[in-house]
Amino acid sequence: MATQGVTPRSEDYSRWYTDVVKLAELAENAPVRGCMIIKPYGYELWEGIKSALDCRFKATGHRNAYFPLFIPMSFIEKEAEHVEGFKPELAIVTHGGGSELEEPLVVRPTSETLFGEAYARWIQSYRDLPMLINQWANVVRWEMRPRLFLRTTEFLWQEGHTAHATREEAVEETLKILDIYADVSENVCAVPVIKGRKSPQEKFAGADDTYTIESMMGNVWALQGATSHFLGQNFAKAFNIQFLDENNELQLVWTTSWGMTTRTVGAIVMTHGDDKGLRLPPALAPIQVVIVPIWKTAEERDSVFAFAGEVKAQLEGADVRVHLDAREGLSPGFRFNDWEMRGVPVRLEIGPRDVAAASVMLSRRDVPGRDGKMPAPIGNLGATVNGLLNEIQAAMLASAKAFRAEHLHEAATYDDLKRIVEDGWALIYHCGTRECEDRIKEETKATSRCFPLDLNKEWEPKGKTCSVCGRPAFGRAYFARAY
Amino acid sequence: MATQGVTPRSEDYSRWYTDVVKLAELAENAPVRGCMIIKPYGYELWEGIKSALDCRFKATGHRNAYFPLFIPMSFIEKEAEHVEGFKPELAIVTHGGGSELEEPLVVRPTSETLFGEAYARWIQSYRDLPMLINQWANVVRWEMRPRLFLRTTEFLWQEGHTAHATREEAVEETLKILDIYADVSENVCAVPVIKGRKSPQEKFAGADDTYTIESMMGNVWALQGATSHFLGQNFAKAFNIQFLDENNELQLVWTTSWGMTTRTVGAIVMTHGDDKGLRLPPALAPIQVVIVPIWKTAEERDSVFAFAGEVKAQLEGADVRVHLDAREGLSPGFRFNDWEMRGVPVRLEIGPRDVAAASVMLSRRDVPGRDGKMPAPIGNLGATVNGLLNEIQAAMLASAKAFRAEHLHEAATYDDLKRIVEDGWALIYHCGTRECEDRIKEETKATSRCFPLDLNKEWEPKGKTCSVCGRPAFGRAYFARAY
Repeated sequence: MATQGVTPRSEDYSRWYTDVVKLAELAENAPVRGCMIIKPYGYELWEGIKSALDCRFKATGHRNAYFPLFIPMSFIEKEAEHVEGFKPELAIVTHGGGSELEEPLVVRPTSETLFGEAYARWIQSYRDLPMLINQWANVVRWEMRPRLFLRTTEFLWQEGHTAHATREEAVEETLKILDIYADVSENVCAVPVIKGRKSPQEKFAGADDTYTIESMMGNVWALQGATSHFLGQNFAKAFNIQFLDENNELQLVWTTSWGMTTRTVGAIVMTHGDDKGLRLPPALAPIQVVIVPIWKTAEERDSVFAFAGEVKAQLEGADVRVHLDAREGLSPGFRFNDWEMRGVPVRLEIGPRDVAAASVMLSRRDVPGRDGKMPAPIGNLGATVNGLLNEIQAAMLASAKAFRAEHLHEAATYDDLKRIVEDGWALIYHCGTRECEDRIKEETKATSRCFPLDLNKEWEPKGKTCSVCGRPAFGRAYFARAY
Repeated sequence: MATQGVTPRSEDYSRWYTDVVKLAELAENAPVRGCMIIKPYGYELWEGIKSALDCRFKATGHRNAYFPLFIPMSFIEKEAEHVEGFKPELAIVTHGGGSELEEPLVVRPTSETLFGEAYARWIQSYRDLPMLINQWANVVRWEMRPRLFLRTTEFLWQEGHTAHATREEAVEETLKILDIYADVSENVCAVPVIKGRKSPQEKFAGADDTYTIESMMGNVWALQGATSHFLGQNFAKAFNIQFLDENNELQLVWTTSWGMTTRTVGAIVMTHGDDKGLRLPPALAPIQVVIVPIWKTAEERDSVFAFAGEVKAQLEGADVRVHLDAREGLSPGFRFNDWEMRGVPVRLEIGPRDVAAASVMLSRRDVPGRDGKMPAPIGNLGATVNGLLNEIQAAMLASAKAFRAEHLHEAATYDDLKRIVEDGWALIYHCGTRECEDRIKEETKATSRCFPLDLNKEWEPKGKTCSVCGRPAFGRAYFARAY
């Protein structure tokens, strides 16, 4: 039960974040450094994200499977860029069943290599394509500077791995998944995203292209929300994944991989949270409406609880996720703060006067003070509340979009960029080279977030040059401080 | 696509099992010995089991959380019996992020110790109890003689961990969960179970009592389907999990833990499978009805497929999980065998004559030959098929129960037991001692399965002695060969 308040965001954003995650009981640090315990309330958010993604993956023809936790070190080494990218982050099992292992095992940081080995066996002919498989799993990437949800040594995710007969089809899959990620992020989590392409040095180790959804947190830093990789034929070559095409000729497949993680919970906290704590979008909130009964005398208590029970049943009948706060010995003010900390979208108060008036008082978590309060008669309350929940969902997305719009700026020069990234994201024509990105990062702490798809109708536009280094531009890119 | 047949059960049961798991595409061995790749069809079975369990856990007040994969070795060592039981099976991470770790990490074999450490922090007062948490996770127990699903180094499971104010409440929880396991096993998986108590040497390392559901496989061997442990105050003491009771006195909690695993998929294969392959209970089958169109001419093909499309839509509207086999170039016989191998409960054939008669031919997977075939008019087909699926579900459970009944026998003497366990389970008065169980195992290969709850109205019944060694009996126990 939360009793303390959170550090104000303006005072220390990083402490504010940790306070909210802990006081709203989403997660805490585990005994092993870098790992976390996801507590029930935090896990319920992940269950909501999972189910939103899972039904979209299934509706687009993907099936779930489960590949092992352990990968032979030799597999990781088969794709040159892949091993280079992941080697510094690996956890290694050297002993099992009481003896030293002949070959050390890697605890999976991602599973392209295991899927690659299996696909080489499973795919024989064009009839076996496309192969569209996803798995829900834990992965481990050793993390030196862990933060709850945002960067943890172990995290939960889904990883999709697909194989296709043609390059075009694989690219199409990569972008289809990017759209699913954007849909879930915006319409379930109310976290607006910019869909874009990563620069060469920011892409996945082993990919030809990485697509990303990038979101702006409450401190204007960027967060990479999910990535979808076009792997070209890199893993097909490394694992010899071939198929006989319709002309009976042997071809390499084209593969993709894509993932969204428990980090998304952190994105929700930082997109919507305020100095009172968490704010949850109704589509995802484990509790959409909390009923807080208020009474003084025993007689009032009885009538208030009887009425609250009816209201609860009515809302459950209207498919609202509702919780009745039946705790004793806590003041209304304490309970209001407690549910605000936990981000419940709607508080429904019931006092003796409400019982008499056959009415309840609704308070929106997203609109502070009187503006967010409204009485509602109990006739047709289910429809009233569902309407309000939809309104809140839309308002939270709109509010996050408005905040973002205030902090997105075009930069014509490097000086513009330097100024903008102090409190926003800068859009510049950019070469995409490592040298230039490294310089910008060193001098401004801002990193290349992505080349947004909707602002780049063509790549390498003629006559355009990088606003920082003068090399030919690859396109327009956002730069920002990032998690 | 399955083209070969399976080894007959009578010829080699173990090979039959492996053939079915592989040819029905449930799972295969992974590159790392002892691990498995659960293929989509096998994973869909696990998803069905998961969702059946998950909604029952939630309905009884449990919440899901997620605890880390890695456990410090020092945690495992805190409960003496626990470390003794698990040490030989541990996988150890010694290196992470490029360096050797100061303290080696255990890849969790089970998570009592992590939950214990957290509960000691989370539980302060009687108001925090009961604490009812479950997690869905992978665990690792090094396996020297792996078998797909039945014994694998890594497996998937749920593990529940609860803490209670009183012994009675913890015992009640242990038995409530046992009932949930029995319900899912019998009513979803159609695998009948015997609920019982494990003997001291068969119980979980660190438990006061272990309860189990035991099922009879097609070769009459026993399979332990799931276990529910009453942990007494063993972990409460090891991790100092205390609470202030209503009189403001400090007390140790009472804890339970319980788990069901991917092994259940193996139990389904071995309970229901036959020489044609898998047989799936309708409640769990990813595909409940497969439509197999049959045609010769292009004209017939058009009308058969148009009709099949209508039938499919009608069944989907009746919430039947239906698949249309639209593959070309494969004979009806091949396709029939293929779907039989995969255990689809109902085949729905549509040929030109069926189109003309506005009728379809239904064939039950669980009843071979003509007895299992019946024509059905397409009017109200949804209700017909749902009725048939319910009938099949009940028939599969009844048939497994009948098979079991034929192989359960009471043994008055050790000689009886020896004879019975050649092809059945023997029920004897048994002392429950390690010496006696070890002797029986060495001489007959049968192990103590459980003391069935419904056949033991009291423990240590007066005047009853062990039929094997003559010591006072703890109760009546089943002995059988077991996986």
